[in-house]
Amino acid sequence: MKAVWQQLHEGICQGQRRAIAKGITLLESSHPDDARQAAQLLAALENQPQARLRVAISGPPGVGKSTLIEALGLRAIAEGLRVGVLTVDPSSRVSGGSILGDKTRMPRLSLHPAAFIRPSPAGTILGGVARRTRETIRLLEAAGFDLLLVETVGVGQSETEVDGMVDLFVLLLLPNGGDELQGIKRGIMELAEIIVINKADQQWQDLAANTAAQVSQAIRLLQRKHTAWEPQVLLCSALHHQGIDRLLEHLLAYGQTMQQAGVLQQKRQAQAALWMWERVYEGLRLQLHADTLVGQLAPQLEAQVAQGALGPIEAAEQLLHCFANARK
Amino acid sequence: MKAVWQQLHEGICQGQRRAIAKGITLLESSHPDDARQAAQLLAALENQPQARLRVAISGPPGVGKSTLIEALGLRAIAEGLRVGVLTVDPSSRVSGGSILGDKTRMPRLSLHPAAFIRPSPAGTILGGVARRTRETIRLLEAAGFDLLLVETVGVGQSETEVDGMVDLFVLLLLPNGGDELQGIKRGIMELAEIIVINKADQQWQDLAANTAAQVSQAIRLLQRKHTAWEPQVLLCSALHHQGIDRLLEHLLAYGQTMQQAGVLQQKRQAQAALWMWERVYEGLRLQLHADTLVGQLAPQLEAQVAQGALGPIEAAEQLLHCFANARK
Repeated sequence: MKAVWQQLHEGICQGQRRAIAKGITLLESSHPDDARQAAQLLAALENQPQARLRVAISGPPGVGKSTLIEALGLRAIAEGLRVGVLTVDPSSRVSGGSILGDKTRMPRLSLHPAAFIRPSPAGTILGGVARRTRETIRLLEAAGFDLLLVETVGVGQSETEVDGMVDLFVLLLLPNGGDELQGIKRGIMELAEIIVINKADQQWQDLAANTAAQVSQAIRLLQRKHTAWEPQVLLCSALHHQGIDRLLEHLLAYGQTMQQAGVLQQKRQAQAALWMWERVYEGLRLQLHADTLVGQLAPQLEAQVAQGALGPIEAAEQLLHCFANARK
Repeated sequence: MKAVWQQLHEGICQGQRRAIAKGITLLESSHPDDARQAAQLLAALENQPQARLRVAISGPPGVGKSTLIEALGLRAIAEGLRVGVLTVDPSSRVSGGSILGDKTRMPRLSLHPAAFIRPSPAGTILGGVARRTRETIRLLEAAGFDLLLVETVGVGQSETEVDGMVDLFVLLLLPNGGDELQGIKRGIMELAEIIVINKADQQWQDLAANTAAQVSQAIRLLQRKHTAWEPQVLLCSALHHQGIDRLLEHLLAYGQTMQQAGVLQQKRQAQAALWMWERVYEGLRLQLHADTLVGQLAPQLEAQVAQGALGPIEAAEQLLHCFANARK
């Protein structure tokens, strides 16, 4: 009989939706058996083709990220692309947010056979990155999705993390006369290859144009991320599907430009090397926790530290010593 | 002759400023020898008394964090406290920000003998947390500082991290009629035990009162962090030293209330247990990199991954296997 990962591998490579969904669930599982299966599955998928473009879509709550992803995804499908989406499920945040699922947030895209939408697993979002983003991206591209859209919630550090997993970073802003540009967005603005002023509807047209002008001016003062690509500022109304075709054109132009400059492959390979170390450090923690002696000592030390009977530094040294000695 | 850490230990416990500064530099060093000395120093300091209160001060750029820390610190010193401050040095950010150092940002506090201000080490800030925050807090309290103020830059995830190192979280906001309350601050607002509307000067008095009212209303809808403490909203003008005495009163009241409820010690001990695991995982990485076989294999694998000749998952498995086998 075939192992779980082998069955999933076949189904994923054939683009079977059920296998894709089950595969991602396997990646997200923290059970040791599942982790082993997941590692085998990922290793088997490593030779599958990569996506044409991996895109992060970021911005503050209420800026219209899901509406834009819906419109952009449908537009890309019309151009013959297959679209994989990782969303931040608002219902799984600590508190509040919309309780609507992706079927309501992206009604047409979620039903389209050329799209696959995966919400973040409940409870694992901290700062907006699902724990298995990198792995899920790989699985979806192995399943034949060639444009990957990764939604993030837009509050700082998570952006830097996600930027280390994608080809480019799209930042959505509201038309608000540039008020939002004060300070807090600077680091995120520096990450963005494309900035979209969304909700540039009839009603907000002037304000949006004004905001775009201010953003354009502001980003000229920031550090450039690439020599081969100048950050673009675009106007969109995702709700009315306006400016979406131009956004897609710019995305694909970015991919082409950076590929021709040799930068895209370079970036992906640097990310892969980083990913290797992430996996190593995680595997290391698993080795530690799988160690019998450590398993006996850790709860005792933890209790002593929690009672204040032992300092955390001293306790850590003891535990590390125990693990290092077990190695001899 | 005494070891470096022993000399520093003596100086720190006597409150010598030079020893304190050198000790923190030792904590921040990534050199393996220094790391060993630092671990010994920290272990030796573990029995020293803890601070009366560890406070995070957060808020968007321009809200007046350093002005408030200056005013609050001086006020606390007038009450007989000794004040340790960890600041985010704006000149060390990737780009821009003010290039003024702490001597200009906190002119009186930085010169006061009852205060010690430590800027973040250049280049190590990502999201606003200096790498050795926990360790530096411990060193400063061992040196006799009993009110610790930790400045953070206020952009999301870093707040959650810092909150895991302090007793309470103070969020500074500008009087702006509540515009800033939209979405992005929700997670951070939930963390805050005290919210200060700063710059509540004559000029902005009405707007500040209005903002305070809106914030008070908003936080009632958020999840409560503690049963023993209801989040407070205060008006301040740090520049004119207005409302600072009330802020200090509330800080000390928080400490007293939570101590009497037994929550403060509980929180610190849970943080200590977390700290133990952080140190263990870090030490584990050091063990890995100190392994001879790993040291030979890693560069080869890294190069293969960067060239696309080997997948990162597969490479990680090989490296982990090598380390695990070396253990037998």
